[in-house]
Amino acid sequence: MFKRVAIIGYGLIGSSIGRAIMQKNLADHMVAVDLSDDVCKTVVEMQLAHEATSSLQDGVRDCDLVILAVPVLQTGNVVAAIKDHLADGVIISDTGSVKQSVIDDVMPHLPPHAHFIPAHPIAGTEYSGPEAGFPELFENRWCIFTPTKDTDVRAVEKVTLLWEQFGADIEIMDAKRHDLVLGLTSHLPHLIAYTIVGTAVDLEDFMGEDVISFSAGGFRDFTRIAASDPVMWRDIFLTNKDAVLDLLQRFNEDLTALQRAIRNDDPDFLEDFFTRTRDVRRKIIDRGQASYPRSPIGSNRYTPRVRPRDAEPDSEA
Amino acid sequence: MFKRVAIIGYGLIGSSIGRAIMQKNLADHMVAVDLSDDVCKTVVEMQLAHEATSSLQDGVRDCDLVILAVPVLQTGNVVAAIKDHLADGVIISDTGSVKQSVIDDVMPHLPPHAHFIPAHPIAGTEYSGPEAGFPELFENRWCIFTPTKDTDVRAVEKVTLLWEQFGADIEIMDAKRHDLVLGLTSHLPHLIAYTIVGTAVDLEDFMGEDVISFSAGGFRDFTRIAASDPVMWRDIFLTNKDAVLDLLQRFNEDLTALQRAIRNDDPDFLEDFFTRTRDVRRKIIDRGQASYPRSPIGSNRYTPRVRPRDAEPDSEA
Repeated sequence: MFKRVAIIGYGLIGSSIGRAIMQKNLADHMVAVDLSDDVCKTVVEMQLAHEATSSLQDGVRDCDLVILAVPVLQTGNVVAAIKDHLADGVIISDTGSVKQSVIDDVMPHLPPHAHFIPAHPIAGTEYSGPEAGFPELFENRWCIFTPTKDTDVRAVEKVTLLWEQFGADIEIMDAKRHDLVLGLTSHLPHLIAYTIVGTAVDLEDFMGEDVISFSAGGFRDFTRIAASDPVMWRDIFLTNKDAVLDLLQRFNEDLTALQRAIRNDDPDFLEDFFTRTRDVRRKIIDRGQASYPRSPIGSNRYTPRVRPRDAEPDSEA
Repeated sequence: MFKRVAIIGYGLIGSSIGRAIMQKNLADHMVAVDLSDDVCKTVVEMQLAHEATSSLQDGVRDCDLVILAVPVLQTGNVVAAIKDHLADGVIISDTGSVKQSVIDDVMPHLPPHAHFIPAHPIAGTEYSGPEAGFPELFENRWCIFTPTKDTDVRAVEKVTLLWEQFGADIEIMDAKRHDLVLGLTSHLPHLIAYTIVGTAVDLEDFMGEDVISFSAGGFRDFTRIAASDPVMWRDIFLTNKDAVLDLLQRFNEDLTALQRAIRNDDPDFLEDFFTRTRDVRRKIIDRGQASYPRSPIGSNRYTPRVRPRDAEPDSEA
């Protein structure tokens, strides 16, 4: 499918793409590019690519595809560093969780003979680094492309075919809308999860081991989300600032209303609020984005309810 | 183990206890007591007990064990209604998610010839009703007892043996501490999850189906928690009010600090905060309360990471 592919940033996402390309033979030559010598060493030892280099310029030379899997704030800098070393007609894509800021950062540096396809695979685990990747990471997952009106259609088609090979479902979306939707479905939940785990850490002296022991009551879910890569998430919040702050404002208003209802002993408000939120879960299940926890009503047999989309932790960006 | 057991409130928790007692032959006669005729009908149709009745008084007559699995605010009323119909030496226990208020509500009504063992199994799913129960619900789960200094030791031992038969791990704890620990590990996470899903519901007109489609980025986890029984949770927040409001105050302070860091572009504060929260997840995994998502570093094979404690939704109270 491609002659020479470079993936810059060989962490969880980058190495999973690399593994999938290697496993499915989608490139003649697969180059892992990472500024960390430790990562390059791991790539060589684990044979996660045909070649590993810490030189951006050497890595991208003669490539027909370059994928950037770096924290979003670095995306523009990386393109600036490689722009004079790109082959004619090269496709550059990325995996950033925020899209408008990436487009704004990349476009000024993009040479006319290169095509940029902004992409965001909604996949991940709470683990980081090249060891954490696996080739099935993107199976049955969404990958959202946010091309601009100037984006080359043939290049979009080629990257679409690639992600389909990984087993992903493709969606095309406007970058600003992507940032707002993901702000709500991913960035705000992560911020909230980080906060609540932070609150628990502050109380650790007093609570001791009990917080850990009895974490199954809901807290455990939050710790998984709040264990995601700190640098990646730092950049997401800084680059999707407007959407996150707006959503946070709305969240705070809702939380204040619930807080007041508890303080004032208002059972009707609470019950009504908790009833409204129930339907959302049903819709997600109906859309095949989650599954029922057991076999249908009437059966007494408990059956594990793990399906492909549920088999992964939810800590995707 | 028991001659005649009545379980009052035959929903997810009550019917799961009933199923486990039936399956393991722990009682000669198992009575399901529920004010809802529909529930009683279901119990008979699905043979979830030897007998179903909507009369509290008839249900508890001659029982040596009565378990209350009703929303916490109803616990005191139920004991008041059955107190003149209890056999000598009967053990009364409950499953409420808040313990101090239950003790305060029950003790004034408890006749001297009855023993009350406050209990809280940390188990559940986001589904409700007698159809949703299953006998394995409590396997490898905690059940916390919060006896007072007056509680009969032999009665505690007997209820301990029962829950051990269900496969639960027993912990004895002071009621006030229970309410604070669970306030942090369960009640606050549920309140936050309800809030964020409520915020999304408010934005549904604008976001449309995208919120559902791209829910895998973190939001999906919250919807599961926020699909739990509304009445049960209404009562939890009203009865554990002080602890919840105090924890919410701390949570709000942390959230405000993160909000300010995003607004002021403070990368160091964010990265530092997100790094601190990572360790908690590791501790939970080390304590066997969650598991690693894949095989150890060095292996290229992806292995599903579902273990008993992870095989259930986290929506326990």
